[in-house]
Amino acid sequence: MTATVGILGGGQLARMLALAGAPLGLRCLVMDTVADACAAQYVPLLHADYCDKLALAEFASRVDVATFDFENVPAESAEWLAQRIPVFPGPRALAVAQDRLAEKTLFQDLGIGTPRFSAVLSRPDLDRALSDIGAPSILKTRRLGYDGKGQFRLRSHYDADAAWAALGDQCDRVGLILESFVPFERELSVVAVRGRDGEVRTWPITRNWHSDGILSASLAPARVSNDIAAEALVAAGRVAESLDYVGVFALELFETPSGLLANEMAPRVHNSGHWTIEGAHCSQFENHLRAVLGLPLGPTSARGVSCMLNWVGELPDPLAVLRLAGAHWHDYGKSPRAGRKVGHTTCVADSAQELAVMLETLGIALDRRSQTESVIDALRSSV
Amino acid sequence: MTATVGILGGGQLARMLALAGAPLGLRCLVMDTVADACAAQYVPLLHADYCDKLALAEFASRVDVATFDFENVPAESAEWLAQRIPVFPGPRALAVAQDRLAEKTLFQDLGIGTPRFSAVLSRPDLDRALSDIGAPSILKTRRLGYDGKGQFRLRSHYDADAAWAALGDQCDRVGLILESFVPFERELSVVAVRGRDGEVRTWPITRNWHSDGILSASLAPARVSNDIAAEALVAAGRVAESLDYVGVFALELFETPSGLLANEMAPRVHNSGHWTIEGAHCSQFENHLRAVLGLPLGPTSARGVSCMLNWVGELPDPLAVLRLAGAHWHDYGKSPRAGRKVGHTTCVADSAQELAVMLETLGIALDRRSQTESVIDALRSSV
Repeated sequence: MTATVGILGGGQLARMLALAGAPLGLRCLVMDTVADACAAQYVPLLHADYCDKLALAEFASRVDVATFDFENVPAESAEWLAQRIPVFPGPRALAVAQDRLAEKTLFQDLGIGTPRFSAVLSRPDLDRALSDIGAPSILKTRRLGYDGKGQFRLRSHYDADAAWAALGDQCDRVGLILESFVPFERELSVVAVRGRDGEVRTWPITRNWHSDGILSASLAPARVSNDIAAEALVAAGRVAESLDYVGVFALELFETPSGLLANEMAPRVHNSGHWTIEGAHCSQFENHLRAVLGLPLGPTSARGVSCMLNWVGELPDPLAVLRLAGAHWHDYGKSPRAGRKVGHTTCVADSAQELAVMLETLGIALDRRSQTESVIDALRSSV
Repeated sequence: MTATVGILGGGQLARMLALAGAPLGLRCLVMDTVADACAAQYVPLLHADYCDKLALAEFASRVDVATFDFENVPAESAEWLAQRIPVFPGPRALAVAQDRLAEKTLFQDLGIGTPRFSAVLSRPDLDRALSDIGAPSILKTRRLGYDGKGQFRLRSHYDADAAWAALGDQCDRVGLILESFVPFERELSVVAVRGRDGEVRTWPITRNWHSDGILSASLAPARVSNDIAAEALVAAGRVAESLDYVGVFALELFETPSGLLANEMAPRVHNSGHWTIEGAHCSQFENHLRAVLGLPLGPTSARGVSCMLNWVGELPDPLAVLRLAGAHWHDYGKSPRAGRKVGHTTCVADSAQELAVMLETLGIALDRRSQTESVIDALRSSV
């Protein structure tokens, strides 16, 4: 295969897409606003603003199909490209996923449970939403938020002024939404892929742990009841169908005493699917490329039990990881910076028990027990 | 890790090394005599002759350690580099592996069985060697032969003139060797890695099938007796120790009624180890990089049962491979040419029986039953 895949955004997701594409014989071109985008260490980079029409025209002329490593590419740029070349996922899916209000409204329309939510249009409107939804709740920007950024948690009505002080100035530009805070038992995600022909495949359900709003660890296959699994997969399928989605996406879910609630969707390969590189028969990266190129999808079944640990801010000692059989090191080639995802490690084992032992070893060796403990508890509990 | 690994030779082996190095955070630089070396689709290329001292100096200045995708880099160039930067495997190992006579003499010195052999220095010397070794036998160039090139098979003494006509003119330049033809039962290989600290790890023994002198299929783990396995692993260990070898190498063996005979060694990652990408816990490519960088070695145990099918000359239909769960497509990004290795596919299954079914499906879908039949027979027989 000799196709060139254009990727808007040149971070680690683009990098891992490009690496997955190489064995398929694909070429990639990434477009990014920064000159040192880490995918550009392996594939050519078009360094430009996503709104630069001249650059977009060059991008379109050099690729056979376009996709995203970054969902916040301006919707108009995606539209402009889609009038010239195939773009997957399509601009509509991107637009919905870019807007928390549109996203949650879609979930609701599809009969998928969500936390209660209300658009917030002004300071007085925040009071209205707050008396409607109650506290605790979270005021979020509708667009451009990620990794916990653009969020303010309200413990009571008295926090309304502080919330507005933090995010009110963004109300006109990106919009605001108030969501009820969900006292969830577990955070889950479904990573799924839909082909151009409409076939949908889902990887086993993943359980996730966050720290400071950033994904810290993922465990897959998560031990969930058959009912929960079925509900999650049906929800992912409905979202994919309704958006005529093509490619990989992730649906983030809260498991609550009263059932699953959908938090948000990411219209791209997702951090909670990184374990699929070593832990599934076909990775999310390869399957995303297969989907956008109209190729047959690969098998999404698991190989063993996997735990992905995110390296945020800086990398830990690689030697401790390399010494541990079944642990895989992923360095994104990025310079360290607080809050920045700079790499990850996936541990794969034949059983939950073995994986727990691996994580114990690694947690101690890296002095990162706070990151591994919850996963070990989950592996050792029967739930 | 921010090291840059220099690779002399920029073919598919360098390409797969570079792709394995990316998750480790490594950068690569390849040096090749051709401008369109396929590794250069993903990593920078220094396009120059291996004897060009200016280019070698530039290469040395841009990398932290040098290694090979190609064993026929002139020994003097390897020596020259080794005086300036770490080079693994070292020039001595390379020199021995480049010369069939030195190689077989080493095997003999280490107590490893070989086919009978004799250096051939002239046309009369061929008669002497032939009466010594007998027929059938094979006249080979001592150096620069690969994939069955530089070989002439003699069925009887009467073929001496024809053999000399075919290869005699190369006697002065690359030397000749006569080897007895071994009526082997099976062709096996051991792919092994030795770290800078002397640790040796071996992947499970691989069984190989050739067609027109070129590897056609590899099956691993091969079903061999414990005795044969132990003998093969001991032989690989001895070779590695004696050469103070660092990196991955392959030892090709014939299984005969009277035991194992060593055919040759390849001082690099090897085609019969490509299955380790999906079929082992750490691939030969990653472990070669770990070894040359002095990092801990990864686990060489198998994940399931694998069969690698080589695509020689041109690629078959990728869709038939992508449709088959457990089959992995590898396109080297090379243009088709008779006798050229342009890609491979590895099929991985949980059992020999499942793998046989996969290969049957693939052989029919690709109309390549001649390539899969022998492997299927081996999987279905109890031997």
